[in-house]
Amino acid sequence: MNDGETRLNLGWWGRACGSLPPLQFIDTMLRGIGQVMFQDNPLSGLFFLVAIGWGAYAAGVPEVAIGGLLAVVVATLTALWLKVDKTALRAGLYGFNAFLVGIALPTFLSPSPLLWVYIVLGAALSVVVTLAASKVMQTWRVSALTAPFVMIAWLLMLSSNGFSGVEAGSLPSSGLIQPIDAAASSPLQPGDFVTGIWISMSQVFVKGDSIAALLIVIGLAIGSFAAAGYALLAALISVVVAHALGAESQLITGGLVGFNPILTAIALGTVFYRPGLRSALYALLATIVTVLVQGAFVAAMTPFAIPTLTASFVLVTWLFLLAEPAALAD
Amino acid sequence: MNDGETRLNLGWWGRACGSLPPLQFIDTMLRGIGQVMFQDNPLSGLFFLVAIGWGAYAAGVPEVAIGGLLAVVVATLTALWLKVDKTALRAGLYGFNAFLVGIALPTFLSPSPLLWVYIVLGAALSVVVTLAASKVMQTWRVSALTAPFVMIAWLLMLSSNGFSGVEAGSLPSSGLIQPIDAAASSPLQPGDFVTGIWISMSQVFVKGDSIAALLIVIGLAIGSFAAAGYALLAALISVVVAHALGAESQLITGGLVGFNPILTAIALGTVFYRPGLRSALYALLATIVTVLVQGAFVAAMTPFAIPTLTASFVLVTWLFLLAEPAALAD
Amino acid sequence: MNDGETRLNLGWWGRACGSLPPLQFIDTMLRGIGQVMFQDNPLSGLFFLVAIGWGAYAAGVPEVAIGGLLAVVVATLTALWLKVDKTALRAGLYGFNAFLVGIALPTFLSPSPLLWVYIVLGAALSVVVTLAASKVMQTWRVSALTAPFVMIAWLLMLSSNGFSGVEAGSLPSSGLIQPIDAAASSPLQPGDFVTGIWISMSQVFVKGDSIAALLIVIGLAIGSFAAAGYALLAALISVVVAHALGAESQLITGGLVGFNPILTAIALGTVFYRPGLRSALYALLATIVTVLVQGAFVAAMTPFAIPTLTASFVLVTWLFLLAEPAALAD
Repeated sequence: MNDGETRLNLGWWGRACGSLPPLQFIDTMLRGIGQVMFQDNPLSGLFFLVAIGWGAYAAGVPEVAIGGLLAVVVATLTALWLKVDKTALRAGLYGFNAFLVGIALPTFLSPSPLLWVYIVLGAALSVVVTLAASKVMQTWRVSALTAPFVMIAWLLMLSSNGFSGVEAGSLPSSGLIQPIDAAASSPLQPGDFVTGIWISMSQVFVKGDSIAALLIVIGLAIGSFAAAGYALLAALISVVVAHALGAESQLITGGLVGFNPILTAIALGTVFYRPGLRSALYALLATIVTVLVQGAFVAAMTPFAIPTLTASFVLVTWLFLLAEPAALAD
Repeated sequence: MNDGETRLNLGWWGRACGSLPPLQFIDTMLRGIGQVMFQDNPLSGLFFLVAIGWGAYAAGVPEVAIGGLLAVVVATLTALWLKVDKTALRAGLYGFNAFLVGIALPTFLSPSPLLWVYIVLGAALSVVVTLAASKVMQTWRVSALTAPFVMIAWLLMLSSNGFSGVEAGSLPSSGLIQPIDAAASSPLQPGDFVTGIWISMSQVFVKGDSIAALLIVIGLAIGSFAAAGYALLAALISVVVAHALGAESQLITGGLVGFNPILTAIALGTVFYRPGLRSALYALLATIVTVLVQGAFVAAMTPFAIPTLTASFVLVTWLFLLAEPAALAD
Repeated sequence: MNDGETRLNLGWWGRACGSLPPLQFIDTMLRGIGQVMFQDNPLSGLFFLVAIGWGAYAAGVPEVAIGGLLAVVVATLTALWLKVDKTALRAGLYGFNAFLVGIALPTFLSPSPLLWVYIVLGAALSVVVTLAASKVMQTWRVSALTAPFVMIAWLLMLSSNGFSGVEAGSLPSSGLIQPIDAAASSPLQPGDFVTGIWISMSQVFVKGDSIAALLIVIGLAIGSFAAAGYALLAALISVVVAHALGAESQLITGGLVGFNPILTAIALGTVFYRPGLRSALYALLATIVTVLVQGAFVAAMTPFAIPTLTASFVLVTWLFLLAEPAALAD
């Protein structure tokens, strides 16, 4: 969606893709991974992929990286079979939801043969849901964002309760909502703030890893300096706001309060509205609101035993895009 | 919605309906019952009605059949009062949601005078919700399906918790989500598969009865051989997929994993897309997805103490209709 | 939205507002408060505001009235900053959701410095969500009603579970759904009926106070006699229907079964359809349905530990507006 402002000259790569279909397929996949953070840029996607690969390797869960890659391949083939719009496909718009499904399922479900069936089905389904959600949201000229990922991952995770062949792994247990214990929001040290900001960058890809975060920031900056700036600023604001409100300290240092606001800020600040002071303030309001909505979704999901994923980013960004205030249209 | 491919010659009946308003009223009601499985055919509806009548009689719950009939009468009168489109009314499109409300409420709530008030209100409301849902979904040229039934039945069942005059009967209790115990998915015998497939046909009408299933298959085949074929195939696939995933064996043999996929397969394979290899494969994917989404909805409904009804069919079919892939438009 | 039928001659006030911007700002705010009950009338709004002020004073919770006022100021400034449509702004359409957010948050959350941050954020957000919801619902020529209030209040109340700086106050606890104990729906005396009807009027503004109710009825009648009549009749019907169904007696006498049906009846009977016998009967059906849907929402919200607010009014009124039956279009 974003043409990028600081894209490297990829002329030779573009020409190579034009003449070699396998390269074009790889280019499409990498752009799909880049689009998780709105970067229609294969080099951004490559950095994100290496980040996931490193994070998965470091955590001893190679299935996460393999799942992501497999999902993008399956989604791309499904998209070709269903004859989706070629331009959108080439820009990676049928890849990013599948990639997130492919890395989220092995993160939260235990490894098993049926896990791979889930990933393949989820990836194929992501193309259908992207088509469906895009048609509905285009009524108001708004993008589907990562709503297909959230819906599919939620449904598949919920369904695991009914099938003994798919086990819950690190999914939370179903419970009643408990207000936070004040002791859990203990004061943070300066270093904790830095950790929370930094790890937030990698939690966009469901990973808490500082080297992965570095690779993701580099990949993002390659696609767009502004996006990288907005992302880091949004992470900073989120961590400060969440701590001021009394959020659980472990959530903050684990990067779990920042990843949704990061996406909101990139979307509203650099992709969908013309950059400027008004859109920056508008994105700031949305960023803070995302911190609160994320807190709300954590509570609301408690009985369902599923993680919030990027639902708060999707809801808040949709609202702030649908609103389309006249003040931002000039 | 389906013109049918093997419809019996109903010329004399059509002429009789044209000259006798009471017959036309009966014809409208029967088509409404037929539309539960997409058959705009009074004879299909008659078979479905006899199936419900038999199932209700055999189970000693005559109120289920009477509730269904009463609901269709009330809905038809409400539709006339609200001056809905005559062609749609005559095709039974204002009857099938009411019929399902009328058979589902006595199935899950205890008999009482207020139960009948609920049925009458629910039936009248079904016309309003059908008009509302149709207007919204027509924005994207998609049918409302049985969404009005699901919404109304859920709301009325939920509301029974707040009113001592309406008792829960066989509704489940509110609980936290528990992952399935592996022992519950014990291996099935060949006969169990046949039972699961067959009973799935009658669970479309919230009944587990093999004679009712026979009458429903006949009624469906009278409306459309293709629909009957797709239905049986979908039931077979659902039972096999659910068992392979490790679903609870009792759910499978009780026909509870098959009835939603049956409706998905008929809708996508024979009603809304041009029949062919591509639409068959597309319907196959949707059928398998419906098995998983049904599992997800069973979990998600646990805290709310309500059954899933046909919600998984509605969600998956909406998604696969909204997607409207170019590959199926040729 | 309603031009009113019995509006007092406010000519001098209108001229004063035209020449004095601060007066115009006050006029806009008062109309915003009036719009909670569909009255584009500053005098109605003034009576409602005094009612809330009295109710808050009597209950020893001045923060409720202050919160409401603060929220309308913030929302109006936000709306000006975002350059919303001036005519809609002047008619109070960007004020009523904010006012409700501003009185609901201090009603359910404990006083604290961060509560005021919540109110300010919620008020600013209400403008964005009103713009967003209006754009979506205008696709079908339907108003957003108080959906923005419900969504924002729910999200902020849910989020309080995650932040130790915002405490739950009088929010219910998260629990499983329990069917009502028959003993809780004990027979009501005639005086109880009157209490239930009367207090329902003030529960529209989240208050159970009979003097506040009096001021609200006067304010409503100033805006529209028909609206006041429909409101009292809807409260009467709701209390009778709820008691006949066996609702909890304390809910009835506390005015909690009547406030949503009141709004439904005003909206359908006097605002959005041409007044007449058909629309009156249609509004009657919707009023009764709202009683049931309110019961359903009380149950459905139990695990989430949040009140239903005006959600049942919004859902039922949307359905009955979307349906837009031909019989009411003549």
